[in-house]
Amino acid sequence: MTDRETCIAQDRTDPLAGLRDAFRLPGDVTYLDGNSLGPLPADLPERLADVVQRQWGDGLIRSWNDAGWIDAPRRVGDKIAPLIGAGPGEVAAADSTSVNLFKLLAGALRLRPGRRVILSEPENFPTDLYIMQGLIELLDRDFELRRAEPDRLADAMDDDVAVVALTHVNYKTGRMHDMAAVTAAAHDAGALMLWDLAHSAGAVPVDLAAAQADLAVGCGYKYLNGGPGAPAFLYVSRALQDEFHQPLSGWLGHISPFAFESDYRPADGIGRNLCGTPPILSMLALDCALDIWRDVDLAAVRNKSVALTDLFIELVERDCAGMGLELASPRDAAMRGSQVSFRHSDGYAVMQALIAQGVIGDFRAPNLLRFGFAPLYIRYVDVWDAAAALSDILRNRAWDDPAYKQRAAVT
Amino acid sequence: MTDRETCIAQDRTDPLAGLRDAFRLPGDVTYLDGNSLGPLPADLPERLADVVQRQWGDGLIRSWNDAGWIDAPRRVGDKIAPLIGAGPGEVAAADSTSVNLFKLLAGALRLRPGRRVILSEPENFPTDLYIMQGLIELLDRDFELRRAEPDRLADAMDDDVAVVALTHVNYKTGRMHDMAAVTAAAHDAGALMLWDLAHSAGAVPVDLAAAQADLAVGCGYKYLNGGPGAPAFLYVSRALQDEFHQPLSGWLGHISPFAFESDYRPADGIGRNLCGTPPILSMLALDCALDIWRDVDLAAVRNKSVALTDLFIELVERDCAGMGLELASPRDAAMRGSQVSFRHSDGYAVMQALIAQGVIGDFRAPNLLRFGFAPLYIRYVDVWDAAAALSDILRNRAWDDPAYKQRAAVT
Repeated sequence: MTDRETCIAQDRTDPLAGLRDAFRLPGDVTYLDGNSLGPLPADLPERLADVVQRQWGDGLIRSWNDAGWIDAPRRVGDKIAPLIGAGPGEVAAADSTSVNLFKLLAGALRLRPGRRVILSEPENFPTDLYIMQGLIELLDRDFELRRAEPDRLADAMDDDVAVVALTHVNYKTGRMHDMAAVTAAAHDAGALMLWDLAHSAGAVPVDLAAAQADLAVGCGYKYLNGGPGAPAFLYVSRALQDEFHQPLSGWLGHISPFAFESDYRPADGIGRNLCGTPPILSMLALDCALDIWRDVDLAAVRNKSVALTDLFIELVERDCAGMGLELASPRDAAMRGSQVSFRHSDGYAVMQALIAQGVIGDFRAPNLLRFGFAPLYIRYVDVWDAAAALSDILRNRAWDDPAYKQRAAVT
Repeated sequence: MTDRETCIAQDRTDPLAGLRDAFRLPGDVTYLDGNSLGPLPADLPERLADVVQRQWGDGLIRSWNDAGWIDAPRRVGDKIAPLIGAGPGEVAAADSTSVNLFKLLAGALRLRPGRRVILSEPENFPTDLYIMQGLIELLDRDFELRRAEPDRLADAMDDDVAVVALTHVNYKTGRMHDMAAVTAAAHDAGALMLWDLAHSAGAVPVDLAAAQADLAVGCGYKYLNGGPGAPAFLYVSRALQDEFHQPLSGWLGHISPFAFESDYRPADGIGRNLCGTPPILSMLALDCALDIWRDVDLAAVRNKSVALTDLFIELVERDCAGMGLELASPRDAAMRGSQVSFRHSDGYAVMQALIAQGVIGDFRAPNLLRFGFAPLYIRYVDVWDAAAALSDILRNRAWDDPAYKQRAAVT
């Protein structure tokens, strides 16, 4: 029978335990929302102060060369690459996930002329669907956004499909697609495959090369801990790069941006997918956060992720039985990302009550309690404490308080 | 006859002199490149440290509500508005200038169905032209980028023109368009008018409302001093907002982003022009930098800008006569932004020699020496010192050194 002491003992033998010190977590919270915003890396305040005071303040414009700002999108991309099974020169950090998705979808449609369908799923993250809708409306031709449930995707892949665009790990439930199988099915249908790795990079094993994925985008501020609104990333497989053209052809994607030519000529390689000047302060915060991953064993990350999420499900189902919770995540860890979600009819208020007790997860409409378990800094004892707090709140109906039902702008 | 003492005396009576203390400028440089990257605001290191450590580190995900991160694009936009003659709710800070230009051009074409021309000028900033090219190529219909020289623009405005898109102050020469006259001509032709204010906001008087301009974009890191790659801004006139639809329809432009609906419904007002999650560290650096403008008299800024640039032209033409320089900027201050450019056949090496002496301007291919005069922190004595250094370098041919001819990545 798992008790709190067992959890503390597991933390003592956890091979990743030392990584918690790479973050500056407040002492009074159990932070299970790193799938939404990762915590502050311990080195970051000093690193960013140097960027601000020495690089910007003293170096001024010279830092574009002297501090290597101009190379940051590619350099940061190369730090992300090993976390997603990509090679050097296949990833760039830039813009937001939404903007990058627009670039890659537009480029994908261009590579499959005559095909008129973007295939996705109804429960994809909304911004992905919105961006598809915006692109299709702009093109004002015969394009279509087709949505198929995960188990019907293969059936929906006919020869009208130009690109299959899915989020690898579902933001609500943590359900994880079989990347290799879905990619192979897309290719069999003659379509390109685009993965949104927002809830995958830094959380679950991703091997874009092994899956032969064509395109990917992802987020810098969740499991990569780059700070609020950190630049996102994009991936274009080496094989596709020379023929790939995206429409946000800003000057930093030009082959020679400082020649100030009148006509656009795309840079070689991944660089042609850059657009405007990147937000350097946010970019170098992400750069700093990525250094934490340098010697991390990704297999150990996955093992711990599975153990933490299994443990949370076990404890919650044991201690909150009959209290209105229903598991919304796959029970099979092989199909699950690094998060666990439960449905509760008063989910919003329950989450507010938890947050008031220092256990920070989040709520997703209409009824989901969402808990992220980032293996770099979450301990087994945190899992215990979160489950115990949840059980207390439900048992005492502590959530049934008008103060916890007041909706904030950001849920 | 102007001498260094005269300049020092002018600084003593300069009504804006005190604003220099709002910046942390290195003691050993004369910084005439604020038109490319503004200097570090003195308050910024402390403000940003608070954002990083208290808001992100302690507040974590809660700061989206508690620290008002979610409102930052609109709040920062409202701080930019008075600098460009816009009202509250007409400006948002977001993305890069290039991305914002794509949004607004695409939205403009949609509002003028049947018209197939984007009208610009050959010497517009390249990223503006590249973005127009990328959009037109994506649309793959009968659209055209038409380029007309500034004095031929009116002739080029036929009833095929959907939108006239120009940069108000030319990045090379500082030549300034007559915003009201060009906008009126565009409207007479039935076209929308879009201004790129990258070299205008914070440098010269801009009154979008008085000019009845429809759309504008601009830069946060030049005269607004928001830091390297700071978020850009966009403006959509109140009158146009309800009917305006842009294709980068990411979740932060949704009317209810945290309802996570399956279909895009645009937010009311300027908010529908947002796309993905903004880079908060860079955004709040810009927010801090904008506070410097709170009580600044914009008429005094213009007066000083004209005086500084007139003085620089006077001194350089007096002290560097016959040394191969040719004025590339309008001599008439009424047609000039807050910069002065001179042509020199060895311009790159001359600028490197100047920078080596601590006078930082920049070079623009093929032969332009570019000097920006930001009235908030540039003194009359700086103008004197820069002109004196330039004259020394040319007289002694100090630029004629292989070290100064080695091109860096960023020029």
